[in-house]
Amino acid sequence: MNAPALVEAAVLPLSQPLLDALQAAFGARCSTALAVREQHGRDESVFDVPPPQAVVFAGSEAEVAQVVALCAAHRVPLIPYGAGSSLEGHLLAVRGGVCLDVSRMNQVLRVDADDLTVTVQPGVTRRQLNEALKHEGLFFPIDPGADASLGGMAATRASGTNAVRYGTMRENVLALRFVAANGEIVRTGSRAKKSSAGYDLTRLLIGSEGTLGVITELTVKVHPLPEALSAAVCFFPSIDAAVRTAMQVIQLGVPIARCELLDANAIRAVNAHDKLGLKEQPMLLMEFHGSEAGVAEQAATVQGVAAEFGGEAFEWATTPEARTRLWTARHHAYLSGLQMRPGCRAVTTDTCVPISRLAENINASIEEVEAAGLPYFIVGHVGDGNFHMAYLLDPARPEELVTAERLSAQMVARAIALEGTCTGEHGIGLHKQGFLLDETGAEAVALMRAVKAALDPAGIMNPGKVFAG
Amino acid sequence: MNAPALVEAAVLPLSQPLLDALQAAFGARCSTALAVREQHGRDESVFDVPPPQAVVFAGSEAEVAQVVALCAAHRVPLIPYGAGSSLEGHLLAVRGGVCLDVSRMNQVLRVDADDLTVTVQPGVTRRQLNEALKHEGLFFPIDPGADASLGGMAATRASGTNAVRYGTMRENVLALRFVAANGEIVRTGSRAKKSSAGYDLTRLLIGSEGTLGVITELTVKVHPLPEALSAAVCFFPSIDAAVRTAMQVIQLGVPIARCELLDANAIRAVNAHDKLGLKEQPMLLMEFHGSEAGVAEQAATVQGVAAEFGGEAFEWATTPEARTRLWTARHHAYLSGLQMRPGCRAVTTDTCVPISRLAENINASIEEVEAAGLPYFIVGHVGDGNFHMAYLLDPARPEELVTAERLSAQMVARAIALEGTCTGEHGIGLHKQGFLLDETGAEAVALMRAVKAALDPAGIMNPGKVFAG
Repeated sequence: MNAPALVEAAVLPLSQPLLDALQAAFGARCSTALAVREQHGRDESVFDVPPPQAVVFAGSEAEVAQVVALCAAHRVPLIPYGAGSSLEGHLLAVRGGVCLDVSRMNQVLRVDADDLTVTVQPGVTRRQLNEALKHEGLFFPIDPGADASLGGMAATRASGTNAVRYGTMRENVLALRFVAANGEIVRTGSRAKKSSAGYDLTRLLIGSEGTLGVITELTVKVHPLPEALSAAVCFFPSIDAAVRTAMQVIQLGVPIARCELLDANAIRAVNAHDKLGLKEQPMLLMEFHGSEAGVAEQAATVQGVAAEFGGEAFEWATTPEARTRLWTARHHAYLSGLQMRPGCRAVTTDTCVPISRLAENINASIEEVEAAGLPYFIVGHVGDGNFHMAYLLDPARPEELVTAERLSAQMVARAIALEGTCTGEHGIGLHKQGFLLDETGAEAVALMRAVKAALDPAGIMNPGKVFAG
Repeated sequence: MNAPALVEAAVLPLSQPLLDALQAAFGARCSTALAVREQHGRDESVFDVPPPQAVVFAGSEAEVAQVVALCAAHRVPLIPYGAGSSLEGHLLAVRGGVCLDVSRMNQVLRVDADDLTVTVQPGVTRRQLNEALKHEGLFFPIDPGADASLGGMAATRASGTNAVRYGTMRENVLALRFVAANGEIVRTGSRAKKSSAGYDLTRLLIGSEGTLGVITELTVKVHPLPEALSAAVCFFPSIDAAVRTAMQVIQLGVPIARCELLDANAIRAVNAHDKLGLKEQPMLLMEFHGSEAGVAEQAATVQGVAAEFGGEAFEWATTPEARTRLWTARHHAYLSGLQMRPGCRAVTTDTCVPISRLAENINASIEEVEAAGLPYFIVGHVGDGNFHMAYLLDPARPEELVTAERLSAQMVARAIALEGTCTGEHGIGLHKQGFLLDETGAEAVALMRAVKAALDPAGIMNPGKVFAG
């Protein structure tokens, strides 16, 4: 998709003095090679925007501060970059400028097992962190599917499959360090589990999409690996039945750890991609954490609810290998789905509504996409009221993108009307600025802009994201 | 305590045109009677500050907006008032102005049982809300002891006894409406359980202590009443043993719902006040929520841990009446403690540290208070690393207050050195502005000030709180 309105006409070449200063400071770690720039100028969104004019690979917080100070002095935009897995155009250089890649800042700095906290650099990815934690008997639950960096996950307020029990980045980040637009290093929060000390700058940065500062360190909560852990799948006669099962499980207060919906299309895709033999009908993929007895009790309750809605073939993944295989397939759903229509691109939606309205939201969305005749699949963190519909689009047929955008806009409008949100976990980026206004109103967006102007008066931090201007 | 540095010399009488406008709009609901003003000019803190110059009782969001607009037009300070139970001087009229009492805005507007959310006006108190919810099989867990208003609890980021399992106001508020300093009504959040839509204005308001806006509506999470609920007490040979038990319970991942410490002094006080016969030695008062089997299993685990640390007489409060009696006594600890030294005032501290450092923090604090010879008692939300020491001071001996402030400062400095916070749940108010700076650093406080200046350029919203200026 071209995004002409999003790209400023006046993207000037990077000033030579700035480039000279960056190259003097960073040598080969400041690159203007087209391949490097293009790699840093694309994400999973469909926007077609010129790449950043330079990419700097920072190795430390001091280096981040140095880049910010240089960009501030030259009034040049700066775009933080972690793993590049964002979905709404967050990292696109709509006003040119410097991409600041923090992926090499990937050290797990501290594991405080007794306090259930860890402190990491922003380039640490969720898989890397869990690898580092597993010998401690701990895990970090936030799981957005992609192997995202923790800095990026904080910046987009990410969540994923475990959020139904463990919360999102909003609930799991205790403290941050970040470089503000003035080049100063700011500390927020502490390792205390709770605090009433002043404004919640931690939560202000979480979800700010790089527009208020560059996150350089995160202290997050981790959790003891449960004594027992089991996964199960259950197949339903309809998506509605699966969703109603999830609703009732939540309403009963069952502390289910994961509760994922896959529609028949998604199952067909993962069966093909991961060589599984799952029944090709709507399925809940669930996980239970607790003691042996607690897990068994939760599962029995859920099985009873599922039976009421016609759920059958409640099957256990009893071995760790079987469990891993199922969850790997779930995480492959996006890639698997793409392969159902060779050469296609996906546009992924991300609404979240109060759980009592979820069935209505999904059912109407399916009716609309079926009527429009676009190939699609559905996965959903349905325990949270959150689901994703992915439209599979032929790039040679631009009218399909137009249709997908129309369907997506209808879905978002409906989610807002159902007292939900235009994005459960992907963020606003370039794509949803109008929807943010629809959802929260002009007054709230005006306050967000006021905060932005106060913290970044020159507008150098990832400009054009969350709101234009 | 006189707080001369806190009271501006230039508190001018309220301008007659403003008073005329308020009285024209609100009639008898705008009061300048000294008794009303004095009642609204005192909280549980020890500061001695002149009362506000007028008190307005608002009945609706539109009326709140009207008062804010009038104060803005006249550049007169405005102080939101809920239940008056704050502890750090939050509601004191250090620069004069109008107290805006929202306690009459006390309607539970919606109960969405299927979504586990409720929407309330800011004057609804936690007990009132739980009374309204109990027939729905739901409860609201945040319990700061006092029967505080939900607006005030949000404004101070309150928590209390259930936070160890259910989180604080930070985690339990989904959406707000508030009147900003420009008189506009702002909506934040939605009824969706999670969202990545824009800056987290909800969390920015939570903990802002009335300095960024007047909260007029809250949508909060509620929880299903657990199938089974049991409370137990256990007595320990030392505070250290009790605290180490709590630490290990948390580290094991037991989902304990409440885990409260009372020291021997606190028990002596509640025994006298509530006519109980508890052993006068350090005690944990615990509560377990879950299924029948789950509760039994949690309790067995905790009992095993307690035994390792010399805990004995693990006693069940099996009936609802016995449970209520214990928790009522816990909630009376503050009042009961005051009665241990007739005519005294209490200065209450509120530090929170990573749980592995809690024993060290409490032990050192006890050594210091014992050496200083001040009467005291301790209660603590120890599962969160949070505890309160209350010094019982004779108002006729001002040197005791000086000693208490010195001890409190030492305790806060130690909590910060132990990577904790100067306030777990009481807030900054007037009292802890210097500690906020110590804890978070000048850069973070400068950003908070920038946010304040952006959202309230005239500085009318509860000025002088969180940070002076």
